[in-house]
Amino acid sequence: MHQMREFPWSQAEKKIARKAFDKAYRKECESILAKAKKMMVDMSEPGEIWKIHDYLSGRRRQIDEKYDYRYSVMPLVLGRLIREHWIQEADVQGLSEEKLIPIKFLISEDSE
Amino acid sequence: MHQMREFPWSQAEKKIARKAFDKAYRKECESILAKAKKMMVDMSEPGEIWKIHDYLSGRRRQIDEKYDYRYSVMPLVLGRLIREHWIQEADVQGLSEEKLIPIKFLISEDSE
Repeated sequence: MHQMREFPWSQAEKKIARKAFDKAYRKECESILAKAKKMMVDMSEPGEIWKIHDYLSGRRRQIDEKYDYRYSVMPLVLGRLIREHWIQEADVQGLSEEKLIPIKFLISEDSE
Repeated sequence: MHQMREFPWSQAEKKIARKAFDKAYRKECESILAKAKKMMVDMSEPGEIWKIHDYLSGRRRQIDEKYDYRYSVMPLVLGRLIREHWIQEADVQGLSEEKLIPIKFLISEDSE
């Protein structure tokens, strides 16, 4: 992810970002867990356990790439998480305007 | 795993080997599955899903290394599988003596 112009983050803003970030991460991990559980239930052969491993490998790569906790890219990360419905706009209320602009841009961008 | 002197395999022997090999593989995958299920139940945080991924990654490397289906190494593979209790000696009955010798050697080797 590209770096953005860096703005200072207040303690209050850092708290908001941390909370929104963790909420999205938790929800996304929950959905991965639910899917893995379903795959286990649907398995017809014990040897299919490796399909679950393949699935987790793929998701882990995506998650590691997506959840980048640097303040320099945080607005882009949060915008993407809202766009993917892991969190809502309300979760980033309280961030300063210069941080909300890229977030809102990402949310509105080619949304249906 | 080192190559051994190669002996011819009759159709009947190939069938015995295939059956014993598949039985062990299935049982070992079942045990991995059971462990993964238990880890899922014991999880306190969705983010711990990656511990299951780490576990599966490690087991997969071991399984891929262990389950080598070349006839040149088959006696060593079957001997190891018996030693690890995935199959029993009865599962390899019918193999010729020159194949049973390395199997029995592996079973007896520093066994308790």
